[in-house]
Amino acid sequence: MTETLRLGIAGLGTVGAGVVKILRREAGLLTARTGKKLEITAVSARSRDKDRGVPLSGYAWETDPVALASRDDVDVFVELMGGSDGPAKAATEAAIAAGKDVVTANKALLALHGQPLACAAEAGGTVLRYEAAVAGGIPVIKALTEGLAGNRITRVMGVMNGTCNYILTRMEATRQGYNALFEECGRLGYLEADPTLDVGGIDAGHKLALLASIAFGTQVDFGAVALQGIQSITLQDIDRAADMGYKIKLLGVAQMTGRGLEQRMTPCLVPVGSPLGQLDGGTNMVILEGDSVGQIVLRGAGAGEGPTASAVLSDICDIARGIRLPTFGQPAAGLEAAPPASAASPAPYYLRLTLKDKPGALAKVATALGDNGISIDRMRQYKHDDQDVPVLIVTHVTARPSLDAALAALPATGVVTGLPVALRIEDV
Amino acid sequence: MTETLRLGIAGLGTVGAGVVKILRREAGLLTARTGKKLEITAVSARSRDKDRGVPLSGYAWETDPVALASRDDVDVFVELMGGSDGPAKAATEAAIAAGKDVVTANKALLALHGQPLACAAEAGGTVLRYEAAVAGGIPVIKALTEGLAGNRITRVMGVMNGTCNYILTRMEATRQGYNALFEECGRLGYLEADPTLDVGGIDAGHKLALLASIAFGTQVDFGAVALQGIQSITLQDIDRAADMGYKIKLLGVAQMTGRGLEQRMTPCLVPVGSPLGQLDGGTNMVILEGDSVGQIVLRGAGAGEGPTASAVLSDICDIARGIRLPTFGQPAAGLEAAPPASAASPAPYYLRLTLKDKPGALAKVATALGDNGISIDRMRQYKHDDQDVPVLIVTHVTARPSLDAALAALPATGVVTGLPVALRIEDV
Repeated sequence: MTETLRLGIAGLGTVGAGVVKILRREAGLLTARTGKKLEITAVSARSRDKDRGVPLSGYAWETDPVALASRDDVDVFVELMGGSDGPAKAATEAAIAAGKDVVTANKALLALHGQPLACAAEAGGTVLRYEAAVAGGIPVIKALTEGLAGNRITRVMGVMNGTCNYILTRMEATRQGYNALFEECGRLGYLEADPTLDVGGIDAGHKLALLASIAFGTQVDFGAVALQGIQSITLQDIDRAADMGYKIKLLGVAQMTGRGLEQRMTPCLVPVGSPLGQLDGGTNMVILEGDSVGQIVLRGAGAGEGPTASAVLSDICDIARGIRLPTFGQPAAGLEAAPPASAASPAPYYLRLTLKDKPGALAKVATALGDNGISIDRMRQYKHDDQDVPVLIVTHVTARPSLDAALAALPATGVVTGLPVALRIEDV
Repeated sequence: MTETLRLGIAGLGTVGAGVVKILRREAGLLTARTGKKLEITAVSARSRDKDRGVPLSGYAWETDPVALASRDDVDVFVELMGGSDGPAKAATEAAIAAGKDVVTANKALLALHGQPLACAAEAGGTVLRYEAAVAGGIPVIKALTEGLAGNRITRVMGVMNGTCNYILTRMEATRQGYNALFEECGRLGYLEADPTLDVGGIDAGHKLALLASIAFGTQVDFGAVALQGIQSITLQDIDRAADMGYKIKLLGVAQMTGRGLEQRMTPCLVPVGSPLGQLDGGTNMVILEGDSVGQIVLRGAGAGEGPTASAVLSDICDIARGIRLPTFGQPAAGLEAAPPASAASPAPYYLRLTLKDKPGALAKVATALGDNGISIDRMRQYKHDDQDVPVLIVTHVTARPSLDAALAALPATGVVTGLPVALRIEDV
């Protein structure tokens, strides 16, 4: 007789309802693939009456997700509520304490509390899976943890927030500014309840921190991710970048350097012809680099009902198939905290300045850069109708502290008006 | 005490030596990731004296891979000899019979004998893994079998022979013909011992048949793959395709249709701006489409020591971690043979014709096409200096039997000289 794996699902929003739909529709296929009957026994959500487009009357209902997580008839607790603390954390802890396996799509929970949760799960012999937490439907946790297990990972990069990429690519396509696109995203339902999570790079930073932990065998450390959002990117930046052969992307990069673990989630310029440069709209892309495999590029939908539910199902199927790995690929108790890199690794930078229209202005800026050891690769002064002269500089490879020193020295030149914009150019 | 997983490696060519190197260099990392000590106990190759750039004296030597496969001190038999029959098959069968797990990079062996081998392995409780057999370092078997386990797969596509893609992209870049590039590949060591395996699409067809089996839950059926190599692609075809906005790729497509399982590995035109169209050189790309996840694109090195060894290590690590899945994702004994599709699904086609320079020639061709229900999307007649008029036609979506009928009718028009070239345009 086919064994049954009993699922308790907490959270019946878009993703939760999507998971229920697949489990109902594809019961036969999933059993053929896993050898187990996958059965929902109980569900939990804030409102019982809401129509979610899928029949729920056959499942026990729990108002309290903590109660759901501890039910005797639940083998796997599926956490799709979201939120780094509160009910999601309490219920996940309760599930682990009760000896349940856990599948979650919650990047914030894992990025902020992953280390103690993983330790608790592994001490109790349960597994904690989160494929859906990073890059939606792209099976990147699996690719990194298992597919590249024979590699020393050298770098992980990615565009992992579809909303930011949508805003940046739509700004260019529609000639609208950031604010208009931000509002459009709100109307389309593309923004988190706290939109700073998206546009501030926090959500993508959570994802990067999780990938970095697996890649480098270190404790997840979201606090060490250098974060910069896309809120200050202007249409002018997008146009100037294009003029120099680049696109602007909210790009995450994690790499182990001689100066410690570098984790950044910041707007960067990438070559227009590169895979990242050609990534339009809400699509995600993750690039994994290993010493043996070279570069692997993974691309797919980073959000939405189907792709996210697909990733949740992947974790459920793994558990049904008896695949039981530590949360971060290696036993969490043995993971060490990585020393954060003191500064980003050197790179070329894009500098957008506005200068006063007077003789010698450009020379003064060039001197301020040169005094800080920064040499200029390309410079363009653009046509202007008023006293503000738009100038664009692409530097040669520069240490970030030198750049910061140069930026600090610019006001004293007396020729710079407004705030300079400095964006890293990433070699991809 | 850490348990040991004992490996016997047969075949010490580029890939075999690469696997040995990683196992020696990264012993600590691999133990941290798998919880097991990965230890080579015995090796086998044709020549014992050859320098392979890695010390082998610590391992028992077997002249006969079948003997290696059955040794008491081997838990996992790693088959890196190649060849669909002969020693590779005999040794794999011996390993399975002796209760060993098997890891292989051998696409031909699995594509031609995968079904009985998988049945034997599963009956004996051993696993048979082959991540390295498809698309080199890209963990595509894992992505499809596990990462997309919650999806009904709708289509699998890919450029999976780096040599063919190298030839096609170099033809365009260097303006050399097929024969010159074929010879260059021979000098560079890019060709299989039997080069037809590469340029005839057979090697890539083997890979497609394996993916199709996993994707659609059917018995692997290489014999049903419609194969066409790249040998007849001319520089003119490449130029004409570019003129119409396309690149020519040796593209594999597998999809389940109402008319049965369609498997094709043929030169196709893909849009120049698509991910496939932008794939240059020896890189591989696999596109997986599922009903929930949408489209996932995977890109990476399809061959070479490091990428292939990375994939072999991934399988070894999976076994060390206790991941034990059926060879094709579902128990092989339950897989059914899929009825092969009677014909390729309808598509637009690229037709390159040479006509006689006389009045009404084009009209006669258009009539022959129209009589067979083919309508023309675009047509170009090119400048010519002699009596041979080069004509290019892009059809609307056409059933392949109609196209074949039209091609058969062309000689009777009396205006067509030379052999028409017909290439499918794939919607990607």
